[in-house]
Amino acid sequence: MLVVMNPHATQAEIDGVVEKIRSIGLTPHAIPGAQRVAIGITGNKAGLEPELFTTLPGVSDAIRVSQPFKLVSREVKEEDTVIDVGGVPIGGSALAVMAGPCSVESREQILEAAHAVRRAGARFLRGGAYKPRTSPYEFQGLAEEGLRLLALAREETGLKVVTEVMDVETLPMVADYADVLQIGARNMQNYSLLKHLGTIRKPILLKRGPSATIKEWLMAAEYILSRGNYAVALCERGIRTFETMTRNTLDLNAVPVLKALTHLPVVVDPSHGIGLRAHVPAMARAAIAAGADGIIVEVHPRPERALSDGQQSLTPAQFEELMRQVRVIAEAIGRGV
Amino acid sequence: MLVVMNPHATQAEIDGVVEKIRSIGLTPHAIPGAQRVAIGITGNKAGLEPELFTTLPGVSDAIRVSQPFKLVSREVKEEDTVIDVGGVPIGGSALAVMAGPCSVESREQILEAAHAVRRAGARFLRGGAYKPRTSPYEFQGLAEEGLRLLALAREETGLKVVTEVMDVETLPMVADYADVLQIGARNMQNYSLLKHLGTIRKPILLKRGPSATIKEWLMAAEYILSRGNYAVALCERGIRTFETMTRNTLDLNAVPVLKALTHLPVVVDPSHGIGLRAHVPAMARAAIAAGADGIIVEVHPRPERALSDGQQSLTPAQFEELMRQVRVIAEAIGRGV
Amino acid sequence: MLVVMNPHATQAEIDGVVEKIRSIGLTPHAIPGAQRVAIGITGNKAGLEPELFTTLPGVSDAIRVSQPFKLVSREVKEEDTVIDVGGVPIGGSALAVMAGPCSVESREQILEAAHAVRRAGARFLRGGAYKPRTSPYEFQGLAEEGLRLLALAREETGLKVVTEVMDVETLPMVADYADVLQIGARNMQNYSLLKHLGTIRKPILLKRGPSATIKEWLMAAEYILSRGNYAVALCERGIRTFETMTRNTLDLNAVPVLKALTHLPVVVDPSHGIGLRAHVPAMARAAIAAGADGIIVEVHPRPERALSDGQQSLTPAQFEELMRQVRVIAEAIGRGV
Amino acid sequence: MLVVMNPHATQAEIDGVVEKIRSIGLTPHAIPGAQRVAIGITGNKAGLEPELFTTLPGVSDAIRVSQPFKLVSREVKEEDTVIDVGGVPIGGSALAVMAGPCSVESREQILEAAHAVRRAGARFLRGGAYKPRTSPYEFQGLAEEGLRLLALAREETGLKVVTEVMDVETLPMVADYADVLQIGARNMQNYSLLKHLGTIRKPILLKRGPSATIKEWLMAAEYILSRGNYAVALCERGIRTFETMTRNTLDLNAVPVLKALTHLPVVVDPSHGIGLRAHVPAMARAAIAAGADGIIVEVHPRPERALSDGQQSLTPAQFEELMRQVRVIAEAIGRGV
Repeated sequence: MLVVMNPHATQAEIDGVVEKIRSIGLTPHAIPGAQRVAIGITGNKAGLEPELFTTLPGVSDAIRVSQPFKLVSREVKEEDTVIDVGGVPIGGSALAVMAGPCSVESREQILEAAHAVRRAGARFLRGGAYKPRTSPYEFQGLAEEGLRLLALAREETGLKVVTEVMDVETLPMVADYADVLQIGARNMQNYSLLKHLGTIRKPILLKRGPSATIKEWLMAAEYILSRGNYAVALCERGIRTFETMTRNTLDLNAVPVLKALTHLPVVVDPSHGIGLRAHVPAMARAAIAAGADGIIVEVHPRPERALSDGQQSLTPAQFEELMRQVRVIAEAIGRGV
Repeated sequence: MLVVMNPHATQAEIDGVVEKIRSIGLTPHAIPGAQRVAIGITGNKAGLEPELFTTLPGVSDAIRVSQPFKLVSREVKEEDTVIDVGGVPIGGSALAVMAGPCSVESREQILEAAHAVRRAGARFLRGGAYKPRTSPYEFQGLAEEGLRLLALAREETGLKVVTEVMDVETLPMVADYADVLQIGARNMQNYSLLKHLGTIRKPILLKRGPSATIKEWLMAAEYILSRGNYAVALCERGIRTFETMTRNTLDLNAVPVLKALTHLPVVVDPSHGIGLRAHVPAMARAAIAAGADGIIVEVHPRPERALSDGQQSLTPAQFEELMRQVRVIAEAIGRGV
Repeated sequence: MLVVMNPHATQAEIDGVVEKIRSIGLTPHAIPGAQRVAIGITGNKAGLEPELFTTLPGVSDAIRVSQPFKLVSREVKEEDTVIDVGGVPIGGSALAVMAGPCSVESREQILEAAHAVRRAGARFLRGGAYKPRTSPYEFQGLAEEGLRLLALAREETGLKVVTEVMDVETLPMVADYADVLQIGARNMQNYSLLKHLGTIRKPILLKRGPSATIKEWLMAAEYILSRGNYAVALCERGIRTFETMTRNTLDLNAVPVLKALTHLPVVVDPSHGIGLRAHVPAMARAAIAAGADGIIVEVHPRPERALSDGQQSLTPAQFEELMRQVRVIAEAIGRGV
Repeated sequence: MLVVMNPHATQAEIDGVVEKIRSIGLTPHAIPGAQRVAIGITGNKAGLEPELFTTLPGVSDAIRVSQPFKLVSREVKEEDTVIDVGGVPIGGSALAVMAGPCSVESREQILEAAHAVRRAGARFLRGGAYKPRTSPYEFQGLAEEGLRLLALAREETGLKVVTEVMDVETLPMVADYADVLQIGARNMQNYSLLKHLGTIRKPILLKRGPSATIKEWLMAAEYILSRGNYAVALCERGIRTFETMTRNTLDLNAVPVLKALTHLPVVVDPSHGIGLRAHVPAMARAAIAAGADGIIVEVHPRPERALSDGQQSLTPAQFEELMRQVRVIAEAIGRGV
């Protein structure tokens, strides 16, 4: 159930609705909008009668929400969420471009990458300090040393830092260094982690699980929003199908579907999605043409020496060319970069 | 094995290579190019020695072809194939736009659709006279009457006709009426039909099977080329995955992968691909941004009354708006419509 | 709609119902059962009123059929269909065991295989004379010569012959030689072929398409039954998933699901399903334990020299051992071989 | 690399090899076997020369291990691992039968379930106290209260308790109560959790992720073994495919494939796998016929009132009948229950 307030409802009227919801044992979620406040209600198993609320002062409407996801839904909040990352937006008319190496490997590597992607026009630096790897014998990341190097790169370039957090244990530390916390595909349904993410005040980039339906993905985001953190962006990064010529199958169908269902920003990762350097630019262009709010791209100063994902990383020169193409498509559909 | 002739090789030199290939029990396939002729060799199980051919007059090179597909491969023919459909190209710099109803239903319906899509800028009219339907109790198409109506629409509008052929029995009749023969997804590995398609002289639009790998799809095209018909365009129309919010998962990853592997044109069907009217334009834009050579879109004068696929058909007005968007993207990447 | 007659309804009463159905423009399908006759009605888009029929003499009940498949449904025919192949049953309490090489390759090969599988207890000989192959350059089968060799093997051993028909053109000839016509996975939705199969009087073994849902598969069978041929067995042979360690993913879940939904017999092909010789016996045992009515297994006198599918073919000795295991499981669940 | 010691190698000889491995910067893993000790080596990126070790005293052989998984591999340990759960084995000739409700809901419910499954012959009681749920608004389990009730049920029945642990935070507490720790499908690649599991001394039941390849699953187990916990059983519980008639596609192909690749026990969960109560017994029979070492089955005193997964839970009477069938199949293949 969603209670929509009048545009000029007073704070007292809003508080009255909130109190009413609590009085019947349910949880209110006030969602401020540009025009008016809406109040989502969770915890209700059985159907509620709209009349419980429409008769209260200041209430414009009470709407039954049909999907299992609520707070992430456009039914609950019509206008697009724009996440403010220290002055740089994710969502809204400008595209968010995030770029950098798969893993932070050394001071030189991350600084060189950061300067290169900034020069080309990115506003966010990506780079993993904690790496989920299929094999326990593979490079697992530089841990806190990697986070320190990311912070240094931020200082030098002004880029915002996007980096993965893998568990609750390291969450406080990673949140200390990062501007945006990335949740990897394999952790999309790590509900213990999601619940913790709901209680902090950092933007989240929630990657889609390799076999997660769009609905399950939205429900994972709902876990975070339902605990109070509304700054969540969704990141399509390829699903698992029978096709073996590409690393994953980047599912661009998810972009327009999500933009219709949810107010959250949608970012696309063409690097993991197709997994082949030569084809990353084509998929980045397609993502933007499909309506994505941003892209996240792997760029490495020397991909052939990368400790992970070298085969899908662009060189700085290739990234510069990609940015040129991205700008052309973005302008064609009326967006800037 | 592929024998590449010198740019100025004489016909006699070409004939000499062809004869040599036949003399060792193999089949030559001369592939004329803008610059020079190449001669593909099929039938060789064991490896051939390049020296067998490089020593012949007029021969520039003899290359081992590593993929199981040969004649469709860019290794065999470097430049893009442009199919000439009575003066209208599929492939090359201009986008091929095909549009029309799923099924031909009546004289009024197909004429209205044809005029509408032509006005909006399409050069090809699509429409099914023979319909493969999951249920034997559903509308199976108007058969020859449908073909006659398509021919009438062509006469009135000048549009080229793209229509599906389902079997060898009706192939001669359908080929009589159609400008381009569409092979449906469920017939992609109907090898008996593919072999027959190799012997006729009509362009083929070969749809990808819902669970066909890119390699299997190229091998299906290879069946047609290996019998002598080189006018084949590939049509991505969505693959089957676990996701149920969309009808299929339109696999745009296939576009850049195919453009690198094969010289054949690549067309995308966003209507079947995503299966939801509201999201067809986003996927059409994305297809073109990814590098597709054309799109095929379902348009129906009154989608709500369509006998098949109404939920994914655009109205004429929606198609006009889609064409506007398509032109913008096409121009942004240096292509016309 | 399904009209169920009284156990002792007279032929005149049955004819009365049939006539009534025709009089309202629909198609009756009389389905004889052990106890009583039922009459399926197809062609009705809109709902029919049961009262139209329950008021006729001899009618016991008129039931709305909820699934899109009708004639294949257990709602329409409760007891198991047992197909009589010249005295040897498919369906019923005894397991149908079909075995032999992937392709007929030579007189010696097929006779040796036939004698071996018969000795081990199989009642059906499988072997392909027409082979659907992914590549046009691979062995395509011996064609009519292969059929003649199968007939010879039948003469020598008394085994019933199961062989694939790929198209309408060769259907009369293949039907002349075969006892059971196999429809390959890639032809499961070749509706033109299915319609022809509905008009002949030969048992059909309908393989599941690699990405066909159970519902689509039943609808494909419905095509055949709706044209009059009720002797259809379904053959699970593995679906396409993301797993690459096995050739396909043999979907044994389909066995109990089908046994509940349809009266048609269900056969399992563990050879194509898992595609690894060493694991064929485990999957054959599992298929029978899950309730399959039969198995079809690839056996080759010398798998290492097979022209197709050698890696999944058993040797005669391995097949003998498999039959021993199969008998044990079959007996454990109260079935014979 | 795997160093295989002589059957009668002394401890000093074993220590010598261990020391040698450490001296070149790699990690030794001594794996005791019934006949002899083998020592796995991890950390080696580049190939090692076998001669480094075959020349040491007591060494029988040094084998290059070709798969990315090492300690879980049969190449490293030939004989089956049998996990001893306080006197009750998982693995070996007797089948391990685990049964109980999806969630612990109340004292009465869990005690009633425990007594029922014990009477029917199960040796393990399953039941979730922490439940990973797709929606944040669904029942999340009784937490520690649920664990206490499981312990009570153990006291009353002697059954061993199998229950899920969802995160590192609750791991010490869950490990205190449980006999076997279950890792849910969605946590299969929660590497932070896996690493912690490697450091404790409790048997682990590692469920397969819904889109995990067999190789990724073995690598997840490798994470646990590589940290020192060798008591890991693998649990197949269905993979995600395009089929929607069943909840998941229980992949029994994984059973023989795993039994060939790894020495770890393989358990099958037919309840989640097919997700339909009526078909759980068929899949349980098939699992055992395929060679599984155990099954885990959902049983609820009153499935229609279950707070989770009621549609796939058996009643106690149905479970009793299932046990009868399981015993028959188990005996047929020479195993007890």
